[in-house]
Amino acid sequence: MSKAETIGSLGENESLKRTIARLSASDFALVGPGDDAAVISAPDARFVVTTDTLIENHDFKLNWSSGYDLGWKAVASNLADVAAMGATPTALVVAVTAPPETLVSWLESFADGLREACEQLAPGCGVVGGDLAASNQMMVSVAAHGSLDGREPVLRSGAKAGNVIAVAGTLGKAAAGLALLQSENKDAISAYDNLVNIQLRPNPPISSGVAAAIAGATSMLDVSDGLAKDASRIAKASNVSIQIDPLMLQGFEAVLEEAARAIGSSESDWVLFGGEDHALLATFPTDAELPREFKPIGVVLEQSATPVTLGVKPLPEKGWDSVTG
Amino acid sequence: MSKAETIGSLGENESLKRTIARLSASDFALVGPGDDAAVISAPDARFVVTTDTLIENHDFKLNWSSGYDLGWKAVASNLADVAAMGATPTALVVAVTAPPETLVSWLESFADGLREACEQLAPGCGVVGGDLAASNQMMVSVAAHGSLDGREPVLRSGAKAGNVIAVAGTLGKAAAGLALLQSENKDAISAYDNLVNIQLRPNPPISSGVAAAIAGATSMLDVSDGLAKDASRIAKASNVSIQIDPLMLQGFEAVLEEAARAIGSSESDWVLFGGEDHALLATFPTDAELPREFKPIGVVLEQSATPVTLGVKPLPEKGWDSVTG
Repeated sequence: MSKAETIGSLGENESLKRTIARLSASDFALVGPGDDAAVISAPDARFVVTTDTLIENHDFKLNWSSGYDLGWKAVASNLADVAAMGATPTALVVAVTAPPETLVSWLESFADGLREACEQLAPGCGVVGGDLAASNQMMVSVAAHGSLDGREPVLRSGAKAGNVIAVAGTLGKAAAGLALLQSENKDAISAYDNLVNIQLRPNPPISSGVAAAIAGATSMLDVSDGLAKDASRIAKASNVSIQIDPLMLQGFEAVLEEAARAIGSSESDWVLFGGEDHALLATFPTDAELPREFKPIGVVLEQSATPVTLGVKPLPEKGWDSVTG
Repeated sequence: MSKAETIGSLGENESLKRTIARLSASDFALVGPGDDAAVISAPDARFVVTTDTLIENHDFKLNWSSGYDLGWKAVASNLADVAAMGATPTALVVAVTAPPETLVSWLESFADGLREACEQLAPGCGVVGGDLAASNQMMVSVAAHGSLDGREPVLRSGAKAGNVIAVAGTLGKAAAGLALLQSENKDAISAYDNLVNIQLRPNPPISSGVAAAIAGATSMLDVSDGLAKDASRIAKASNVSIQIDPLMLQGFEAVLEEAARAIGSSESDWVLFGGEDHALLATFPTDAELPREFKPIGVVLEQSATPVTLGVKPLPEKGWDSVTG
């Protein structure tokens, strides 16, 4: 058997070549990977761009996440930001830093995760460029691009009093999965592996972003830092207050109840304050027909002292912070 | 005096807010920083995109580089890739990871470097989005975008036998600066601070990329890993050989001679194998009028066994590798 190949032994060029070979092309790439830059089609003469980074031991742990999981998660979290503008994802560039002793087979599995997340979450979107460098700590930084196809972008700032607020995707499942992993309770991890899987490979409803835009969404974002914190972002950007109806969260909580009991956690905390589901949170005029995937969870009110309330109680803005954790 | 503020004490949102306040807007931004994504104009319905990462203790050292230097270098190295396609830079997104104890004042100085590099190297281009997260090791990952204004991109693969090969910008100065810093020879570092400054804040000829495209350049890239290695990339992509004329490199060597003598290094090695100048290397038809900034350094020949020769001697492909160093 040959010695296990590492990215340090192969070098940047050869390691990148192996990785790129596993990716599928973007339908929008006029010039793909391999030159100083890629050239991407922007049909309506505009493009959407966002960037997000995942860091070892902070956003992921290598003993929990495989290369595949990490590739998937990096794509999913970035595509959700593109979707939250009401755009269709077109192209990604991916920068990876990893210790030189990282196996090339790990990098190949990572590439498989990138490819399959694109194919399943946003068919037609692909990786068009990348960068690989040596570091102590593994890190994945993605910039994602999208096309608005002539529509106006859906911003955080357009919510109006009287609007309905609704969510597409999961709430609290990623946080539940994280709590399960942290519990190190093997039985619970195995019993609720559907929740663990959402933490490792979130499944944001990417195409629902365009559906929301077409349905007339007045504001939208992706719930990366928790419902409370992200709803408050809409409230502040739009100069409104948001009232979440606790009854309308019961469905989200119900599916987490058993797992919460198994490890002594609170399903309600997961739903309200848990990040990383990358659900889409959007506001709509009352006369809009909500896309099927969106479930109403409350209403938009005139601005008051409290950005977000759960029923009549102020909802604290706690949640995830990329720096303080 | 108040306690020194760190990004850990302020958190991601407030630290990012402070940073963004110091940036200048991109002329191409239809929606700037602050939403899930930015929206950028792409006048000819295409955009160019590239990504490059700088890693602490690998691409920079914090006792050599200030925050300002690092911001500048991150912009310069990415803009050079956009320029090498023949494009005008339009917008950047910047992901930073840093230890929580990093001072906010460092981050502000970093933002100043981002801003001034954009203003001086590519007026009109600006930072349109970013991400900040905690890590052990500092890292800056940039994705840069550009507009081709209706022109065809200049690829690495278009060089033709009979073409002239020419370079715009500096060769070997960044490597000389690195060698000076590594020598820890304070007198030499001070005497040749112009070279040290190119290492810390490279000055690639960004607008020369568009000039080369307009002049009919058949291939182009930016010299990030050294002349020998990058010329070989053009040769391989274009299925040609490149013959560099040693006499035509004398001007590049002459300005490095004294510094090389001062620390016992070779100016010729710096010019041939030194990376990080981000000069533009391009090939032109013999009847093209070279833009003023481009100096001819050799000719393109039919493909032979050796991708690049210096005179008649094969030039080894050694140079910088982002993984193996």
